[in-house]
Amino acid sequence: MQTLLLNSDDVHENANMADLIPAVEEAFAAFERGDAQMPPKSYIDLPQYNGDFRSMPAYMDAGDWDAAGIKWVNVHTDNDEHDLPTVMGTMVYSSPETAFPLAIMDGTELTMKRTGAAAAVATDHLAVEDATSMGIVGAGVQSYTQLEAISTVRDIEEVVVSDLDEERVANFIDAFEDRFDVRAGSIAEAAGCDVLSTVTPVESPVVPRDAVGDHTHINAMGADAEGKHELADEVLLDAKLVIDDHAQTTHSGEINVPYNEGVLSDDDIYGAIGEIVVGDRPGRTDDDGITVFDSTGLAIQDVAAAHVVYEHADENDNGYPFDLLGLATEAER
Amino acid sequence: MQTLLLNSDDVHENANMADLIPAVEEAFAAFERGDAQMPPKSYIDLPQYNGDFRSMPAYMDAGDWDAAGIKWVNVHTDNDEHDLPTVMGTMVYSSPETAFPLAIMDGTELTMKRTGAAAAVATDHLAVEDATSMGIVGAGVQSYTQLEAISTVRDIEEVVVSDLDEERVANFIDAFEDRFDVRAGSIAEAAGCDVLSTVTPVESPVVPRDAVGDHTHINAMGADAEGKHELADEVLLDAKLVIDDHAQTTHSGEINVPYNEGVLSDDDIYGAIGEIVVGDRPGRTDDDGITVFDSTGLAIQDVAAAHVVYEHADENDNGYPFDLLGLATEAER
Repeated sequence: MQTLLLNSDDVHENANMADLIPAVEEAFAAFERGDAQMPPKSYIDLPQYNGDFRSMPAYMDAGDWDAAGIKWVNVHTDNDEHDLPTVMGTMVYSSPETAFPLAIMDGTELTMKRTGAAAAVATDHLAVEDATSMGIVGAGVQSYTQLEAISTVRDIEEVVVSDLDEERVANFIDAFEDRFDVRAGSIAEAAGCDVLSTVTPVESPVVPRDAVGDHTHINAMGADAEGKHELADEVLLDAKLVIDDHAQTTHSGEINVPYNEGVLSDDDIYGAIGEIVVGDRPGRTDDDGITVFDSTGLAIQDVAAAHVVYEHADENDNGYPFDLLGLATEAER
Repeated sequence: MQTLLLNSDDVHENANMADLIPAVEEAFAAFERGDAQMPPKSYIDLPQYNGDFRSMPAYMDAGDWDAAGIKWVNVHTDNDEHDLPTVMGTMVYSSPETAFPLAIMDGTELTMKRTGAAAAVATDHLAVEDATSMGIVGAGVQSYTQLEAISTVRDIEEVVVSDLDEERVANFIDAFEDRFDVRAGSIAEAAGCDVLSTVTPVESPVVPRDAVGDHTHINAMGADAEGKHELADEVLLDAKLVIDDHAQTTHSGEINVPYNEGVLSDDDIYGAIGEIVVGDRPGRTDDDGITVFDSTGLAIQDVAAAHVVYEHADENDNGYPFDLLGLATEAER
């Protein structure tokens, strides 16, 4: 046996959203049913380098397939000095049955894909059925997979992208103008769409209550650390509020600031995405106005996405097989 | 930048014991000084496959170098049915400063090397200076690195290897007869040597008190799970007993059974190898008889060993550079 090496391009090419979204949905369902294991993220803090490492091991059982692996990821805020991304990830994807490392893949690209897929799962359950317009606040790397994923579950025609950086907006429009009616706009214009994804690292909310459309579904993707939040407290308090994981979201998700200030409590949380996916709670109903999905990103999403990428790459002979463990047969070498 | 892929042969070739032993010694010292981070191993238990996964992240700072990384390793006891080893490991070795994954290497070979190096560190501090004979109980894969490592710190001439499996004994003798006076022998003959390493998975002790030489230093390497122990309780109680880490050893090391039965207590533990390495406690003194090192294996040993392997491989253009993260320059590709 050999280990399949999948670089960023390979991950991109083999992460088909039409496969990825149901796989991530199954991950949420497995977690809700108790068919997943996800030890708490463990951190190595390196203040001398303004950085940290996080290890995210997970296992999930979807019934007809299961997946195991670990993502080793960092946040090093000074990395632009080294011409490196702030966040880099390496994913080891292993057979649950034998633990053989089936693939090692770029975890950075994988994270973007699985994060987009999570937003699509939430959008599928929480946005209005006939949603055709999508707003995006923050035109960084994560914005691309938001549109890729969400346009898989809703017939998005019109896209409004809002960012202070005009070059990023122009690049985003360039990338998508062949497929969508996409234009630059204000935050209010973006927030008035049927679906809104916020993907910024801000610590002061940028989306005010009065900007949000009457039935807008918001994917709040940006907050990933204490002190970060993108939406005004009133948006969260008026919305049907759905989270991915209580411990993570109250620690570092969109709601962490108002939750820890006592502005927002458990009573204001409608439920977990897993509860909706398995049918324990309804998604959007006719009575709902604003809905919010607070996504922090779970290790089970990574293993589910890695499963899809590996299976697709293996079928299509993509990637580079490498005899990492010295267990290849003569024929394989 | 590219990530250097190092397979089992590459790890073997670049893990020079003369470099590895001091690096592992520095890891023990850094841990003792508080210059290391080693979150508890986290487990994913898969009883349906008779297996588990363990993630072992670590960081250590030796002063003039530091190292970070994670080993993802498993124990799947039915793997012989799949023609795979019970234990396999994958090591991601990262720059602490930027978190770039400098290397991905076979963690199985690395584990054997760093385990041998740990035994050599202990032997250097605890065996008699003029040790010339070494016994080995258990002639499996770990036995080879025990002799390789320990013969680096003592002038071993005579080796006695004891194992019920004659083929394993013959293979071991074949491998080393050019360099040592090596022969098969009983456990008592092995345990009478100046240095003894036990590397078996037994749950009932195989080394009785009366077999052990008056000044034998024993490296108890085999126990790695609750219920396992190789040495009779009396050996441990009569010895100057040194451990690597209190939490791990009382949970799954050589002393776990007598410790949890109350036969052996903290008062019977002389100290940690780190305390000896930094000079807080003396190693062997003229008054000492039997000494025992209870080794469970620490994640800091893995990152220290990975540092040595990576630096050596990089200098010698070994391994296979791979653009995992899509960050290579044109010149590198």
